[in-house]
Amino acid sequence: MLALYHFGPVANSITPLLCLIEKGLDFENRILDSRKWEHHDPEFRRYSPEGTVPVLLHDDRVVRESSVINEYLDDVFAEVSLRPADPWQRAEMRVLTKYVDEYFCPALTVLGAHRATPFASKIDKVEMAERLANMPTEEGRRKWEIVSNTGYSEEALAEATRKLANVVAKLEQKMADGRPWLIGGAYSLADIKWYSMMLGLPCLLPELCNVEATPFSVAWLERMAGRPAVEALDQYARRD
Amino acid sequence: MLALYHFGPVANSITPLLCLIEKGLDFENRILDSRKWEHHDPEFRRYSPEGTVPVLLHDDRVVRESSVINEYLDDVFAEVSLRPADPWQRAEMRVLTKYVDEYFCPALTVLGAHRATPFASKIDKVEMAERLANMPTEEGRRKWEIVSNTGYSEEALAEATRKLANVVAKLEQKMADGRPWLIGGAYSLADIKWYSMMLGLPCLLPELCNVEATPFSVAWLERMAGRPAVEALDQYARRD
Repeated sequence: MLALYHFGPVANSITPLLCLIEKGLDFENRILDSRKWEHHDPEFRRYSPEGTVPVLLHDDRVVRESSVINEYLDDVFAEVSLRPADPWQRAEMRVLTKYVDEYFCPALTVLGAHRATPFASKIDKVEMAERLANMPTEEGRRKWEIVSNTGYSEEALAEATRKLANVVAKLEQKMADGRPWLIGGAYSLADIKWYSMMLGLPCLLPELCNVEATPFSVAWLERMAGRPAVEALDQYARRD
Repeated sequence: MLALYHFGPVANSITPLLCLIEKGLDFENRILDSRKWEHHDPEFRRYSPEGTVPVLLHDDRVVRESSVINEYLDDVFAEVSLRPADPWQRAEMRVLTKYVDEYFCPALTVLGAHRATPFASKIDKVEMAERLANMPTEEGRRKWEIVSNTGYSEEALAEATRKLANVVAKLEQKMADGRPWLIGGAYSLADIKWYSMMLGLPCLLPELCNVEATPFSVAWLERMAGRPAVEALDQYARRD
């Protein structure tokens, strides 16, 4: 039995969704509604004490962290491999994936969370105070304290945007030799990880990522969008 | 040919050093002197444009990022394996390694860099200004601007210490069932990664990590210190 807890086809939830679909694996589609704080429910926190999403269940085993889930899926279901066979290319894939987790994702999270301010600032103050007091982590508490109040400062938003400009430049430079996928000729977990975060960037920061400024990145995004697995993502936006 | 560029047996440089020694691999010991900024020399930056250390050379291939280097070494030199054969245990190993890279290491870096302030604040102001202007990354520039001036604020140091308290609590909880190594019975890359960062903690934060407060962590540190590979680390502190 495979089951994936996720927030629908957004950000880190896309990472294991795409891997499962690319591999043709059947899985239970367990969508959590972040606006109802379902990822903080005690039932879910049996699997993820800090309330982080996504989480994969495989029989009686719990696997957390989207990048780790994908390496796990590739270790266990090796028939359709999404990691290069060559160890050096595999290392390059891991360097690129690690960069998304450590640099790209935290910067994008600031802009993404900031956009939740109109929603979060309308939550009943008493309810929000209770939510904040019971956040699984101090980091989560601080984020929601900002988001449910005024949102991030201009300075914090500018800093996140500066980092995202570095991210976009890195992708463009990587693809500028005309390669179809991030690790040369082979589609891999690096493409999946990058796509999870890049997907919304042309809309979020059109001045940074557009067909004139970053033609190779836009072409790669279109190549990704044409994959049947990406086209199938919408099916996982709704509860079964 | 294997060669490792590193800063000697400290922090992230320990990670691949220990892996190479545990596997009994011969390698050229290429120590960089961070106080002479050798990691910013153009010759080294051919391998690591951002000046990050360690870097592994394997024939004509360059592998960066200590956690990735160790997975690479385990992929290529599989005779002595340092990853659990079981995919779920392997995933757990990766979750723990990722936590060090994303949470533990950045917090420890603040305290570590702060301790460089007495040295860095004595650097000739003109030389330092030139160094800052030519830092490979904006993040590096900001760090050295702080360190070469007054050091980190009390608030930043308290925040790093708060995170390190979480780190120590996590390790203690993990080891509290009496297991000898982080992933149950098998010594793995997770122990290597954690040791690289934990090694100095009983001296750096004795109130957090000591035999009364964290007996299981201290016992694990002693178990690590008794491994021949760890005992051999000092040999890699000096240039050949």
